[in-house]
Amino acid sequence: MSDKIFRVNMTELTVSVEEVPQNWAGLGGRGLTSTIVAAEVPPTCHPLGPNNKLVFAPGLLSGTVAANSGRLSAGAKSPLTGTIKEANAGGTSAQLLARCGCKALIIEGQAKADSWYSLAVTPAGVAISEEKELIGKGNYEVVQTLSKRFESKRGVITIGPAGEMKMEAANISVMDPDGNLRSNGRGGLGAVMGSKRVKFISVDPQGGKVTIADPEAFKQANRAFAKALVDNPVSQTLGTYGTNVLVNVINEAGGLPTRNFTSGQFEGHDKISGETMHDLIEERGGVVKHNCHAGCVIQCSQIYNDANKQYKTSGFEYESIWALGADCCVEDLDDIAEADRLMDDLGIDSIETSVAMGVAMEAGVLPFGDGPGVCRILREEVAKGTALGRIIGNGAGSVGRAFGVTRVPVVKNQAIPAYDPRTVKGMAITYATTPMGADHTAGYAVATNILNVGGSVDPLSKDGQVELSRNLQIATAAIDSTGMCLFIAFAALDDPNCLPRLIDLINARFGINLTGDDVTNLGKTILKTERAFNQAAGFNNADDRLPEFFYNEPLPPHNLVVDFTGEEIDSFWNF
Amino acid sequence: MSDKIFRVNMTELTVSVEEVPQNWAGLGGRGLTSTIVAAEVPPTCHPLGPNNKLVFAPGLLSGTVAANSGRLSAGAKSPLTGTIKEANAGGTSAQLLARCGCKALIIEGQAKADSWYSLAVTPAGVAISEEKELIGKGNYEVVQTLSKRFESKRGVITIGPAGEMKMEAANISVMDPDGNLRSNGRGGLGAVMGSKRVKFISVDPQGGKVTIADPEAFKQANRAFAKALVDNPVSQTLGTYGTNVLVNVINEAGGLPTRNFTSGQFEGHDKISGETMHDLIEERGGVVKHNCHAGCVIQCSQIYNDANKQYKTSGFEYESIWALGADCCVEDLDDIAEADRLMDDLGIDSIETSVAMGVAMEAGVLPFGDGPGVCRILREEVAKGTALGRIIGNGAGSVGRAFGVTRVPVVKNQAIPAYDPRTVKGMAITYATTPMGADHTAGYAVATNILNVGGSVDPLSKDGQVELSRNLQIATAAIDSTGMCLFIAFAALDDPNCLPRLIDLINARFGINLTGDDVTNLGKTILKTERAFNQAAGFNNADDRLPEFFYNEPLPPHNLVVDFTGEEIDSFWNF
Repeated sequence: MSDKIFRVNMTELTVSVEEVPQNWAGLGGRGLTSTIVAAEVPPTCHPLGPNNKLVFAPGLLSGTVAANSGRLSAGAKSPLTGTIKEANAGGTSAQLLARCGCKALIIEGQAKADSWYSLAVTPAGVAISEEKELIGKGNYEVVQTLSKRFESKRGVITIGPAGEMKMEAANISVMDPDGNLRSNGRGGLGAVMGSKRVKFISVDPQGGKVTIADPEAFKQANRAFAKALVDNPVSQTLGTYGTNVLVNVINEAGGLPTRNFTSGQFEGHDKISGETMHDLIEERGGVVKHNCHAGCVIQCSQIYNDANKQYKTSGFEYESIWALGADCCVEDLDDIAEADRLMDDLGIDSIETSVAMGVAMEAGVLPFGDGPGVCRILREEVAKGTALGRIIGNGAGSVGRAFGVTRVPVVKNQAIPAYDPRTVKGMAITYATTPMGADHTAGYAVATNILNVGGSVDPLSKDGQVELSRNLQIATAAIDSTGMCLFIAFAALDDPNCLPRLIDLINARFGINLTGDDVTNLGKTILKTERAFNQAAGFNNADDRLPEFFYNEPLPPHNLVVDFTGEEIDSFWNF
Repeated sequence: MSDKIFRVNMTELTVSVEEVPQNWAGLGGRGLTSTIVAAEVPPTCHPLGPNNKLVFAPGLLSGTVAANSGRLSAGAKSPLTGTIKEANAGGTSAQLLARCGCKALIIEGQAKADSWYSLAVTPAGVAISEEKELIGKGNYEVVQTLSKRFESKRGVITIGPAGEMKMEAANISVMDPDGNLRSNGRGGLGAVMGSKRVKFISVDPQGGKVTIADPEAFKQANRAFAKALVDNPVSQTLGTYGTNVLVNVINEAGGLPTRNFTSGQFEGHDKISGETMHDLIEERGGVVKHNCHAGCVIQCSQIYNDANKQYKTSGFEYESIWALGADCCVEDLDDIAEADRLMDDLGIDSIETSVAMGVAMEAGVLPFGDGPGVCRILREEVAKGTALGRIIGNGAGSVGRAFGVTRVPVVKNQAIPAYDPRTVKGMAITYATTPMGADHTAGYAVATNILNVGGSVDPLSKDGQVELSRNLQIATAAIDSTGMCLFIAFAALDDPNCLPRLIDLINARFGINLTGDDVTNLGKTILKTERAFNQAAGFNNADDRLPEFFYNEPLPPHNLVVDFTGEEIDSFWNF
């Protein structure tokens, strides 16, 4: 059985299963979502109108036993940024969609506003049903209810109340192997799903499997690939402390944006660090090392319990903890965990929303450090869709405009995450140039600027940063197409045995002969496709800039500013 | 005494009086504000930060006895649109500033956030004082208090609470000869003044007068010019019914945007029409024909009294009445008048805010037709700066984003006024191309599309509209530089004796020899200067487009859409 395109038209409430056009055949994940969005979505359409399309695509290796291959890409025109957008998440659905023979699921049109629907994906295609019970419900209740409603174990892709209310920071959540939540976090794709009037999508492969062209070669390649991942020291650290190990590292480097990006170090860093969190998790009987999808050998996730040793949250990432911790000056990990859980349940991006809280604190909406206040706003304002809730739920740029704040850390209206571009200068280039709006995952220069992975480039100097970000963004666009978790990049950058084995895996899966150059070219093509969409939507080089304050306000303790000229930034695109 | 540039630095709290640079010498009004903003404001600066500048300039003829020469231009980078912005208003200050020898007043920098200030302009320059009493007060209280505080009669330029709160629709108000309010309405210039921490500016010429190079020629030209204005039939109609005479005219043409731009005709048009208003004003002992500045011979303003024959509002314009009436479906003129007064008092643009209310009605924030609800939101939300108040106070685009509405009538984030571009197609070109964001005054194609002034171009066809809008925008940019009210354009378009006499006036004032071509070239240069600023700020042709729904949703009763191609719109700039 060859993979197909599953298409749903929500205006007509019709479905179809289509052959894969030849020029989409070699694509998966981000490569495929971006190609489809660029081909089928009018770049100037309203992101929440009927002409936008929401596309899901498992990666090229999703559905196989390849290590770390369970990421699901979602793509559309973003209501937050107005650009093309891809966001990917773990959970079980990438693998199950692939096993349905679904190369991509395209949701187009727009149902009338008086009903909500669910989609059920099986190898036979998609069925549309009206949904009433779960409308208005949080993501935890959705996955729990559906786990009971369905007889067999299925994948679930859902939006929370934020997506239903079309908030621009709304995410899409994917059920993970434990029945908890992983998110296609950034860019408001949950609002696009809400605008289509789709509450959730279930995925049931009914025993279907993906076919491997050369099973023996695949097995061998996977063994070597997994070993490269497991042996990598950064992977091991991630397994022990989670991504939150970065709090102390980035604080030490002076690049931990604090108090709405007015300092690069946070006095309370020890209270929210990965090391502190590790000990607290062990003390409370949580799980330190935990996977977000089957086949993950890095296991950077964790189960964080509350003081009563009850489950509170998982997938508790550095960027969320930084945003509520350092950027909002909240020093209590339990407040941060409570907010993280609330955001997961509402279905709203924890980076965007937490940075928005930092801007709101600068505006005087609540005091810096007020963790309970953050939770109250999430519960009483965002969840209820009050006016303040909608201002916050539309992200940091929205809060800045609402309250006339001039220090608003966004690029293309998307919040800048946990690495200050004045001190980790490679990230200045990534934030400015990625077609996604400020996104650390698009080209994680932190690796080479701070972690000395893939060599070493001085974070405090602009020398070499454009080339670094360019190489990383090209590689990332390719990796995002495989279904692989981005954290394979640490091994890929340092272990010469890693990337070739990944290519072997793809070749063995499809019976083809990709080379390393082919993969690089794929990455370049994806970036250029995305940029062309943005340009047709009206973006130009002036949008590839950081906010004014990064150029004018030196950041303690290094007291540096962003000093890239426009020409230097634009030279990123010389490839 | 030759005119000078008065400059105030709010960061340093310093003032200076400077010679006029040679290349600014022949400029006034919009020509001068746009030239100064383009020369001195970094195009990518935050509009509410210290690098933006707020510039006031009387017109070339302001301060003289020339008919209708009392408009005051204000300019800056707009917080609403992000573009360069000029908005002009009547009132007494243009003439008084000119009589102070002030060619332009430039306010730069930014005072610290713990104090507010006022500026006092005299022929000697500017004095800065700390202000406490009037902070937080509405515009009516400001002008009433200042009329008592000052011994002599002065001009007053002020912001209301909306400007203090830096709302993006905040305007700047200018006291008129009766001590009431006129507004530099559009684009949020009041927020820029608020960001500088300047509450009000007083203007006292202390007996100063402008010098006329050739008084006899001036007098003769003015007599002929005023006669052309007085004799013009459109001017006469404006004097009788005010601008609100247009309700029935535009409704009949099917271009009266109704119920948030879903129809071109409003069933309740008779209840809010200029004819109805005229009778009601007479019945209640108001004033039908009234001037907003000394020397106006058209007198389109009026004094609108309430049912108890007490003053309610003045300068009660068609566009405001349309927006609350047809667009929000409010059929009670008294509700509309109350809202108009509230907006004047808050210091917020009545077009932007009322169109925002229409979008809020579509979002379900309040029902269509709920006039008292509009007043309640103005009083209890906008005035108090609540979250909802800030969403509304930031304009129609803000409301659309907050509530996920896709039918949002804005260009460059500024609300489209009272002429639907699907039915009055010349206005489609003006809205799309003017560097100001959607602004009917930038090139009032309604004149030739509907009123048969300056010839006749079929409003329902796109033929000839680009050329029409181009000619009008060039002429308007020039007229906006003279200090003249735009309503001289009706006579200028139809009476061959009008425009030459205006040029005679300028020549007699300065002892120069401008020709008609010089004036046309001035208009072209202004437009190109403004566009160059916008391009440097990041705008491009993609921003010169109307929202998607105008291309997709036919407007009853003519059931037309906007059908200009991008190339056709862009050909506007071929001059």
